[in-house]
Amino acid sequence: MPAPHSLDTLVQALRCLPGVGAKSAARMAFHLLQRDREGALQLSEALARAVQTMRHCERCHTFTEAQICSTCLDPARDPSRLCVVETPADQAAMERTGAFGGMYFVLMGRISPLDGVGPNDIGLKKLLDRVNDGLVQEVILATNFTAEGETTAYVIAQALKARGLRTTRLARGVPVGSELEYVDLGTIAHALAERR
Amino acid sequence: MPAPHSLDTLVQALRCLPGVGAKSAARMAFHLLQRDREGALQLSEALARAVQTMRHCERCHTFTEAQICSTCLDPARDPSRLCVVETPADQAAMERTGAFGGMYFVLMGRISPLDGVGPNDIGLKKLLDRVNDGLVQEVILATNFTAEGETTAYVIAQALKARGLRTTRLARGVPVGSELEYVDLGTIAHALAERR
Ligand SMILES: [Zn+2]
Ligand SMILES: [Zn+2]
Repeated sequence: MPAPHSLDTLVQALRCLPGVGAKSAARMAFHLLQRDREGALQLSEALARAVQTMRHCERCHTFTEAQICSTCLDPARDPSRLCVVETPADQAAMERTGAFGGMYFVLMGRISPLDGVGPNDIGLKKLLDRVNDGLVQEVILATNFTAEGETTAYVIAQALKARGLRTTRLARGVPVGSELEYVDLGTIAHALAERR
Repeated sequence: MPAPHSLDTLVQALRCLPGVGAKSAARMAFHLLQRDREGALQLSEALARAVQTMRHCERCHTFTEAQICSTCLDPARDPSRLCVVETPADQAAMERTGAFGGMYFVLMGRISPLDGVGPNDIGLKKLLDRVNDGLVQEVILATNFTAEGETTAYVIAQALKARGLRTTRLARGVPVGSELEYVDLGTIAHALAERR
């Protein structure tokens, strides 16, 4: 007995979620239809709305509903320091420390040769344009302390040094091998103060 | 910096999926918006359509877009034998064996006192109505061989015996503690042939 068509379609569509295989997708579809149709409808609407409204900030590349995000437009922030992070979640972790009042650039990824992600895929060119605004004096590389994050920091540092810009890296108070998003705030604040 | 509103809404909405916590939801939202907007839109549409079109078959209780599902309407199937399963996935596993040509009743769950799921929550009353069609002579209990599945089979068997109906259970060729969906076809076919 083939499953009904719109159920098949849903199971297949759920597999676009990272880490969700055929069995998980079938479980999710069953759960939503049998126990949480309200949740399914809310998710449907949230997906459609996010895809419609979310674009990239023209200055820092993070997700925003506006042309330029509120952080980039904030006149209270110090435009001479630019902090480069991998994802919006990493930026949020930096912000929660309260220890940084400068600007951000969000790579929306990291260099990962094994996954075929090179410098052009993480907006390196956009970053090089960004730092040429005549205001940025220091670029703080706050990519994760993983192999890919270190590679990414290294590649960016080389490109910026060639342009005569000062680059720093969060101090290694951040545990090696961990991701910023999971690090306690004190450690991040400490690493920021001791950047080199 | 608070995340933009429609992104927040999406992260929150993704948590309606079973097994998805705050961190997974944030990862999924990032992945969809950054790498698979097409998939996000397809998922949005599939969710809306499934919720709109999927209802329960009036005879067997499984998901269907029609009033009565194609299995229940199939005149080639033997109406004297009714196989009771927990989910559509279990029914599909039975069908793949090719060893059963009777009808089905899909509980859409199992009795689980620890989760507060009792006989009324799995359509026991609907099943008792179903078996009173004057055609069903044997009810094959093919609930899973887990603690909850065994409990469910026991409760149904007691209710049906009180009505003078013959009930059988898949033979214990099915490994104890496993779920039908994952059992190889030969084992299921064997267990069906040796039902007691
Ligand atoms: Zn921005
Ligand atoms: Zn049916």
